[in-house]
Amino acid sequence: MEHTVQKLVILGSTGSIGRQTLDIVRAFPNDFQIVGLACGDNISQFQKQLLEFKPRLAFANSPGPLTGQAQFSTMEDMASSDDVDLVIIATTGRAGLGPALSALKAGKSIALANKEILVMAGELITELARKADARILPIDSEHNAIWQCLRGEDSTVSRLLLTASGGPFYDIPHEDLINTTAEDALNHPTWKMGKKVTIDSATLLNKGLEAIEAHWLFGIPYPKIEIVIHRQSIVHSMIEFEDGSLKAQMSIPDMHLPIQYALFYPQRLKNAGIARLTFDEMRTFTFEPVNYAQFPCLKLALEAGRKGGTYPAALCGADEIAVELFLKNQISFLDIERVIEKTLSLHQNKARPRLEDIIEADKWARKTAAGAARKEIKCQS
Amino acid sequence: MEHTVQKLVILGSTGSIGRQTLDIVRAFPNDFQIVGLACGDNISQFQKQLLEFKPRLAFANSPGPLTGQAQFSTMEDMASSDDVDLVIIATTGRAGLGPALSALKAGKSIALANKEILVMAGELITELARKADARILPIDSEHNAIWQCLRGEDSTVSRLLLTASGGPFYDIPHEDLINTTAEDALNHPTWKMGKKVTIDSATLLNKGLEAIEAHWLFGIPYPKIEIVIHRQSIVHSMIEFEDGSLKAQMSIPDMHLPIQYALFYPQRLKNAGIARLTFDEMRTFTFEPVNYAQFPCLKLALEAGRKGGTYPAALCGADEIAVELFLKNQISFLDIERVIEKTLSLHQNKARPRLEDIIEADKWARKTAAGAARKEIKCQS
Repeated sequence: MEHTVQKLVILGSTGSIGRQTLDIVRAFPNDFQIVGLACGDNISQFQKQLLEFKPRLAFANSPGPLTGQAQFSTMEDMASSDDVDLVIIATTGRAGLGPALSALKAGKSIALANKEILVMAGELITELARKADARILPIDSEHNAIWQCLRGEDSTVSRLLLTASGGPFYDIPHEDLINTTAEDALNHPTWKMGKKVTIDSATLLNKGLEAIEAHWLFGIPYPKIEIVIHRQSIVHSMIEFEDGSLKAQMSIPDMHLPIQYALFYPQRLKNAGIARLTFDEMRTFTFEPVNYAQFPCLKLALEAGRKGGTYPAALCGADEIAVELFLKNQISFLDIERVIEKTLSLHQNKARPRLEDIIEADKWARKTAAGAARKEIKCQS
Repeated sequence: MEHTVQKLVILGSTGSIGRQTLDIVRAFPNDFQIVGLACGDNISQFQKQLLEFKPRLAFANSPGPLTGQAQFSTMEDMASSDDVDLVIIATTGRAGLGPALSALKAGKSIALANKEILVMAGELITELARKADARILPIDSEHNAIWQCLRGEDSTVSRLLLTASGGPFYDIPHEDLINTTAEDALNHPTWKMGKKVTIDSATLLNKGLEAIEAHWLFGIPYPKIEIVIHRQSIVHSMIEFEDGSLKAQMSIPDMHLPIQYALFYPQRLKNAGIARLTFDEMRTFTFEPVNYAQFPCLKLALEAGRKGGTYPAALCGADEIAVELFLKNQISFLDIERVIEKTLSLHQNKARPRLEDIIEADKWARKTAAGAARKEIKCQS
């Protein structure tokens, strides 16, 4: 077999997933070529990456000169560039939506670590991928686990057991979270992630987004998706098949593994940098049903998913604003759910939305959420 | 797709696996035709099966007339009969070896619930299957789990975590088992099985046989096989791949499931008669390394596997005699390991054995084990 070098674009290269993707590239230097890198605001880190990986194309959200020989490019152009094989979308929030569409339209496969893209535009994106015969490879640990469990299987899924660590506040009564600070919430027990994702993990809204994502990625209907609290974060999800047999995928919590799986699929390769599970982590596993009363954000997210149309986009927009304000200490932890609930209750749905409808719903939700937040602040002062 | 009716022979039809195989046939009456049935001594049960399933061929180990229209046949002839698609070998001990060889020689696939066949003659059997392009489908819950975990995977296995319930005596110090009766040992916590298998589960010798079986079925080297105590018997085994990712297969402990999986492979079908896992069974899973000092029979079995040649056949022969004498209350529970150890210590190995060598080793081991047992009895009286 001829040795092929995969040509990559990494969007969000200075974030947690972006940096770990570059670790895999470093571990297998003969297998990849970095065609383009894009970052948000972390320019000093980005300059180092440009010097190390020498991409032809680069994009940074913040102004400033680009070191090295990289030529400036928009993320959309980079993602659809002729010499690209795979676009890793490791941006956060809605930033990756445009580049994802651009990549798929050009027939490029994408590896997805950015939940909001499928949540906001699941129907559009999956339809586009089907038409262009491009693949959507999930990097999220849960979706990567589902993908692994479904490998080689062709029978109907009877249940997806989507595991959730429960986050840092699992054992705290919901009403006691009123004085929770951003710092408390950022102290996640097992995974090291970006700030936005960490807050979404604490409210479990994240798990709702993942359910919506799983729905679109694997065509699993919502009634078959069950959220399971698994505090140990070793089992990354489970699939039950028609015959009653379940498959689970496990590993130590390390995003290098799902990233590597997506980059080399269908091959599995040894990587000395990825630790193995030992009995220390496997001694006891627990699984319990989620208590929705304790996690209203999860309930809201699942409802938005089931309603479909522009509801999930509105959910994402409202959540981005609410989390942003919480991280700035402008609203309380419990205000996050209030702001999202208020916004969704005012939303006018549009079924089978086009891209413009999705962008409009997101914009509307941000504005509405900001207004709802101001009201909460007023009430409390 | 044209509907095909699978034509089955079931050897050991009145045993636990045989009866459960017939349950699956009853649940899917349009998918199977029973060509032949064979039983040991349970003639009254067998007569009922002959009336219900009307096989063309029948064999019973005990003398007595056969009801219905069934024509007498040896198990060997039945297993290689022209009109047979799949031979289910649910006999115990060495009884299934001849028919298994006969089926494979005729190019028939076999579904295997009889461990001893692969343990005694793993090299012979797997070579024969390869040459005849016949499949060996494992029915044992662990091997069926491994088979499911490997489905669609083509990369190297880095570890097989073979789960073991630990049996009824797991929490009892080894030296306290001196007065254990057959009745104590037959009281297995989760699986309902035949007597021989139940005693082998209590000594964990069974798990050693399964390791040898897994070695031959899936080509996994012994150093990669790890025995893991999992008291809940829900996870039926786990495979770790080169990249550090693990897959586990789980279900409620019900042999109908692996039998059905083997009969319909690659299809998975709904069966209302097979219960689903609920949170009641999943609340807590534990995994711990096995303590070999507590289970000398397991250690002996793994050593016999690693040594290869005729050692595994000698192990099986010695174990059959030891368990038989224990069930008759002629030797103590702890004598089982002594008899096997003594026998194996006297064994003259033959590498790459032919069938005659295997049969000879088994015969020799039975005789030697019986002698060793008599000595134990003398010492104690």
